[in-house]
Amino acid sequence: MRTHFCGLIDETLIGQTVTLCGWADVARDLGGVCFIDLRDHEGIVQVVAEASEADGNAEVVATAEKVGYEDCLRITGTVRARHSVNAKIRTGQVEIVATSIEVLNKAEPLPFHHHENPGEETRLKYRYLDLRSPDMQRKMRTRTKLVSALRHWLDARGFQDIETPILTKATPEGARDFLVPARMHPGEFYALPQSPQLFKQILMMAGFDRYYQVARCFRDEALRADRQLEFTQLDMEFAWVSERDVQDLVEAMIRDVFRDVAGVELAAQFPRMTYAEAMRRFGSDKPDLRIALELVDVAELVRDSGFAVFTGPAADPGGRVAALRIPGGASLSRKQIDEYAAHAGKYGAKGLAYIKISETGEISSPIQKFFDEAAFAALVSHVGAGNGDIVFFGAGKYSTVSDFMGAVRLKAGKDFNLVADGWAPLWVTDFPMFEWDDEAQRYVALHHPFTAPSVDDEADLRANAATAVSRGYDMVLNGNEIGGGSIRIHRASMQSAVFDLLGIGAEEAQAKFGFLLDALKYGAPPHGGIAFGIDRIAALMAGTESIRDVIAFPKTTGAQCLMTDAPSPIADAQLAEVHVQVRPRASSAAQ
Amino acid sequence: MRTHFCGLIDETLIGQTVTLCGWADVARDLGGVCFIDLRDHEGIVQVVAEASEADGNAEVVATAEKVGYEDCLRITGTVRARHSVNAKIRTGQVEIVATSIEVLNKAEPLPFHHHENPGEETRLKYRYLDLRSPDMQRKMRTRTKLVSALRHWLDARGFQDIETPILTKATPEGARDFLVPARMHPGEFYALPQSPQLFKQILMMAGFDRYYQVARCFRDEALRADRQLEFTQLDMEFAWVSERDVQDLVEAMIRDVFRDVAGVELAAQFPRMTYAEAMRRFGSDKPDLRIALELVDVAELVRDSGFAVFTGPAADPGGRVAALRIPGGASLSRKQIDEYAAHAGKYGAKGLAYIKISETGEISSPIQKFFDEAAFAALVSHVGAGNGDIVFFGAGKYSTVSDFMGAVRLKAGKDFNLVADGWAPLWVTDFPMFEWDDEAQRYVALHHPFTAPSVDDEADLRANAATAVSRGYDMVLNGNEIGGGSIRIHRASMQSAVFDLLGIGAEEAQAKFGFLLDALKYGAPPHGGIAFGIDRIAALMAGTESIRDVIAFPKTTGAQCLMTDAPSPIADAQLAEVHVQVRPRASSAAQ
Repeated sequence: MRTHFCGLIDETLIGQTVTLCGWADVARDLGGVCFIDLRDHEGIVQVVAEASEADGNAEVVATAEKVGYEDCLRITGTVRARHSVNAKIRTGQVEIVATSIEVLNKAEPLPFHHHENPGEETRLKYRYLDLRSPDMQRKMRTRTKLVSALRHWLDARGFQDIETPILTKATPEGARDFLVPARMHPGEFYALPQSPQLFKQILMMAGFDRYYQVARCFRDEALRADRQLEFTQLDMEFAWVSERDVQDLVEAMIRDVFRDVAGVELAAQFPRMTYAEAMRRFGSDKPDLRIALELVDVAELVRDSGFAVFTGPAADPGGRVAALRIPGGASLSRKQIDEYAAHAGKYGAKGLAYIKISETGEISSPIQKFFDEAAFAALVSHVGAGNGDIVFFGAGKYSTVSDFMGAVRLKAGKDFNLVADGWAPLWVTDFPMFEWDDEAQRYVALHHPFTAPSVDDEADLRANAATAVSRGYDMVLNGNEIGGGSIRIHRASMQSAVFDLLGIGAEEAQAKFGFLLDALKYGAPPHGGIAFGIDRIAALMAGTESIRDVIAFPKTTGAQCLMTDAPSPIADAQLAEVHVQVRPRASSAAQ
Repeated sequence: MRTHFCGLIDETLIGQTVTLCGWADVARDLGGVCFIDLRDHEGIVQVVAEASEADGNAEVVATAEKVGYEDCLRITGTVRARHSVNAKIRTGQVEIVATSIEVLNKAEPLPFHHHENPGEETRLKYRYLDLRSPDMQRKMRTRTKLVSALRHWLDARGFQDIETPILTKATPEGARDFLVPARMHPGEFYALPQSPQLFKQILMMAGFDRYYQVARCFRDEALRADRQLEFTQLDMEFAWVSERDVQDLVEAMIRDVFRDVAGVELAAQFPRMTYAEAMRRFGSDKPDLRIALELVDVAELVRDSGFAVFTGPAADPGGRVAALRIPGGASLSRKQIDEYAAHAGKYGAKGLAYIKISETGEISSPIQKFFDEAAFAALVSHVGAGNGDIVFFGAGKYSTVSDFMGAVRLKAGKDFNLVADGWAPLWVTDFPMFEWDDEAQRYVALHHPFTAPSVDDEADLRANAATAVSRGYDMVLNGNEIGGGSIRIHRASMQSAVFDLLGIGAEEAQAKFGFLLDALKYGAPPHGGIAFGIDRIAALMAGTESIRDVIAFPKTTGAQCLMTDAPSPIADAQLAEVHVQVRPRASSAAQ
């Protein structure tokens, strides 16, 4: 139907006859001469319909006069040099003089045009129009290139792409499962996988050595701006490896793929940081190293102040008093400081003490009065505060202070333009094996229950569970956890010990994970792996904040597809076939 | 952890020290000298543990003596030439003299060993052990190579791999949907896609031009031997194309991939056959052309016989009387002939008339008596029957006769070794647009409701619905439909007309497919595509009858995963969260 793509017409084709298919991006009728910007996935080229000396060309001009936005056209014409070159587009040196214009499909008046900036609801409802825009085409193509580059990289290195089931077993650990009633088994359900974790471990025990899959995963969680019900991860697993084997290989992969797809040169060696160091310096296990702000511990300097909010945590081994100096932060108004306190509050802060030093050296601080002069001066000096700065202080439980001061750091980075250009990858390692859940009064796994501890001995792990370190690792890029993995447990006795520490009794473990415990008994090899978040990496590469821009048909934060109107009610007869019914409203769980 | 793979050790490494990881495939203790066949995904190498003059090597020998089947080992040793070469394995020229044997994970006594031939239930329950066998490794690797080759081929040609949703809208047309209760929308459900059909069409309207996806699809149908609840297709769609554009491209793809992955050279140009011709000659829309047997229509020759079973259909324009000559078929006993009749009966035959001509020319036929001598001789001559042959006859409704005679043809092909070696691909085209469903008293779509008819005009289609031909096409290989596709409807008015002919009213069409009808209004381009069954193609390439051999974790025909025990019962509290409950048994649909 066509000889060339619109966006690829160039001067080498001048004088040739071409046939193009595309949409009318813009059409202008200048009275007897019409210009149509014809658009396909490669770009835009200008088409001219004008009277011809030879045959008048009247029919072509008449057709062109009636062309409207997004009409689907097939145009034949001759390529010629343009009088007024358009340097903004790739084809700007040339235009097509039309000898035939065929309207393949007339477009009705549009709900919006991509030249406008419609609201997201409209964009999602008419997703097919939204995706036609060159900007969305570019973003989606970045994702395609990313996935393709990853696959080619792994295919060349002996990794096997193996599909694991979507209809699988419910394992109520971690996030909430999506359930699928089983027609052939009344009262029973399949679950959609939260990740292929256990299947990929089984694949290692099954002898596949090096596995990958671009895998769809499902978590029925509250949707935040950057979450989807279903998401895609590059899932990988290796047999007979240590942490560094996995890390070195995937670090090289990420570096190569960023270079090839985005033209970005990442560090030749990613920095490495323990979880403890990341929390201490940046208040985050996924620090954005582009922001040159660091937390400073000041417990020693405030322990003897008269400020009870500080002295308690300063004396508590589980407490923390941390300061964050923001250069130029003295420009913050009282209202803006309150906004910082409110922001910290979302992460658990009860308040946000500060010391502000004006450009001329005047100090304003609600906590100054609790210190004698020397102690206050020592504090100011220790955090390196000078004229024009503000220093925020957080005090309380170690993890809470780290969390909210980390959040303050990110906000300050953005507010004061302290986020450097470029790319800051790093590895975070040595995560705690367990976190104590106050509410459930039991340990929970910081990664997942299949992560190996750094100790080989079960008795050792049991004796030191609170301080045990795991063999997990995360790859962080610009403040995003883009990949997470670990060396897994490969012996049944250690797996049982970990289940036990997590409060999963032998019977429950057998019911849920019996196949894993069995498989570990038959010569399971040491193994480990990692999973990368494709949606997030694609968004980073495409330069967009929203992963919805790199997903063809995303759901809203309300878990709906506005284009197809999913989810939707189902006839009761159809539900009967799968042996379920909608629950009467009263007995349903609270919303 | 290792320097080499077991299966790749060869003579170039003689004298070198290597470290290998793998499983003990076999271990033999010959008293002071132990042999271990060490196996990884690349193959097997022989390891020798023997006393050394240097240091005695006693510990190594002692460890080796205790090695059992499937122990997970790490072995260091020196490569040397073997005394007795084993030509059966790739590494058969060499062996490893062990200097260290580390038992990474001892295997408990196995439920079976892959050297045995356990039943399928056992294989599926202990899938990780089954998959370790070299045969299963080879089959699974064939699939990996197939998918990788297809992707690389398409990536090189500008196709974009785009993911479409798994949680989508129920469209109760075609097969039964799997349903997923929506937690955030009480009483509503997502459905798993039967295919990405509508999404890929929308992608063409969204400007992606050429799309592919290795897509998981879901159909909640009764499982036959070669079906799974979830299956994988290579899904493709092209904008601005005709049938031949699609066919020529994917034919080249299949040819290249068979050559590269399986070393198979398919025909330089696939034969093309209309649906009508395929049914007439082979009684199937997916004829296995390796079998040199053809149906012959004999209505003209039996119309005036005295055999009412023949004369009725022979005179009926909707009837058929067909013959199938089987060379050498005279060897069939009465009992075997009955088996053929029973086989045909499964496909709707009420009986199976025959003429048997012995090697010495004696005729045995229950229908001979209905013919005069000349007419009978003419019939025998027309079907080309000679000494040693049998000819089966089917009479009745055209489609029924075609079906069961097609089934008889396949059975005869197998029984009489008439299936030629090699590969017989072809295109089947010109399918009927609609089939009349006697039960529902309405038309149903032979492909799907989005397939374009060969006529452009809605009035023409409505006037000739019964005989309308679609723009659908199937790729058939050795009697398997490995790919099916069509040019799609790209105008809203034609789509509405087809919905109407299928008994889908305007309101229902809007509720189910409103987004498609909307999208068609905004300049939808002409488009078409195809989908290939990856599981079946992989099975064909791997030389196995069962697609379960090329799926890592398949379900049984009872829709269960025997390894994980899915599906399983779910706590009522968890069901309450998603607003459903198990239906009381009595109100459930009949099993």
